[in-house]
Amino acid sequence: MGNKIITVSRQFGSGGRTIGRMVAEKLGIPCYDQELIEKIAKESGLAEEYVEERGEHMPSSSWIANALAVRSVSGMINEDQLWSSQCKVIFDIADQGPCVIIGRCADHILKGKHDLVTVFIHAPMEKRAERIINVYGEKNVSIEKRINDKDKRRKAYYQLYTDSEWGAATNYDITLNSASIGFEKCVDIIADLYNNKKTTE
Amino acid sequence: MGNKIITVSRQFGSGGRTIGRMVAEKLGIPCYDQELIEKIAKESGLAEEYVEERGEHMPSSSWIANALAVRSVSGMINEDQLWSSQCKVIFDIADQGPCVIIGRCADHILKGKHDLVTVFIHAPMEKRAERIINVYGEKNVSIEKRINDKDKRRKAYYQLYTDSEWGAATNYDITLNSASIGFEKCVDIIADLYNNKKTTE
Repeated sequence: MGNKIITVSRQFGSGGRTIGRMVAEKLGIPCYDQELIEKIAKESGLAEEYVEERGEHMPSSSWIANALAVRSVSGMINEDQLWSSQCKVIFDIADQGPCVIIGRCADHILKGKHDLVTVFIHAPMEKRAERIINVYGEKNVSIEKRINDKDKRRKAYYQLYTDSEWGAATNYDITLNSASIGFEKCVDIIADLYNNKKTTE
Repeated sequence: MGNKIITVSRQFGSGGRTIGRMVAEKLGIPCYDQELIEKIAKESGLAEEYVEERGEHMPSSSWIANALAVRSVSGMINEDQLWSSQCKVIFDIADQGPCVIIGRCADHILKGKHDLVTVFIHAPMEKRAERIINVYGEKNVSIEKRINDKDKRRKAYYQLYTDSEWGAATNYDITLNSASIGFEKCVDIIADLYNNKKTTE
């Protein structure tokens, strides 16, 4: 059908991004994460920070309240422009060759267009909080609140644009608990699935 | 902590039961499915047919309507007795040694008591309908309705007794789409996870 593409959706702090990068390295194919944000920013003319935050998260309720207060609709126009640019960039990247794409509803955007291995990575809250503190050096007391907020907005964004449920098992070829299985084993399983995936005509 | 146990939850028609049996055979450990029903029936004094149907499905709405019509509460008493016997039998089986257990909320019942590999198997509707027609020889025109009804009642039962969401990725170590991945590969992945699982003290 097209190229073999691995899409990695992930809970915040689950290590899905790291696992995606490790898979790409093991397979010798590119991994699009930060590079994707740069490309989408360039395509849309929007700031990278805006693309990074708003290309897979619904705005927070305080943002919505603020937007309504100033009666500005520019935010919503930017949202649609962002989605359109995101789709275009993801289509272009996937057309270029096999790769790993982190987040950004790529599983939904590429469905039926390429030979996908769709992955969702999750981990229990305490392991995610631990990882965020260790890896990102964040020591905020309300780390669990931040994780819940980020996942909630990621889920809402996914639901809005794909009409599917983020994190429902049936939405993915495979979902993995990175804490109980371990990063290395997750990488092995995903790389093996990719290698065994037959391309369709 | 205890024994290494694989629990397999599954969508109706996804082949989860078959995959569970294949995993057990590959690992040379017992698989409890029909045997579990016989044991629970014996323990509870309830008929096997009742245990099979009601040990992981909520009653249909017509059943509830009927029960209310005759103002009988015996059904609800049986439900609790069934749950209690189901827990006891699953505890006993898991204490005996490593095994595979199909369905019956075993993932929830054994949580924290043994070293679990919790699995959920699913597949797209058209593949499940195809399998039910081919394997079980059912040719009912409303096969999709039956699948949806069965999954809905399984989900409701799981929710009631475990307070967790059946089929949510975060509920399991691994979830697999048996149609896109293939039965053999699912078996290899699960058996490998089992072999790599370290037992806790």
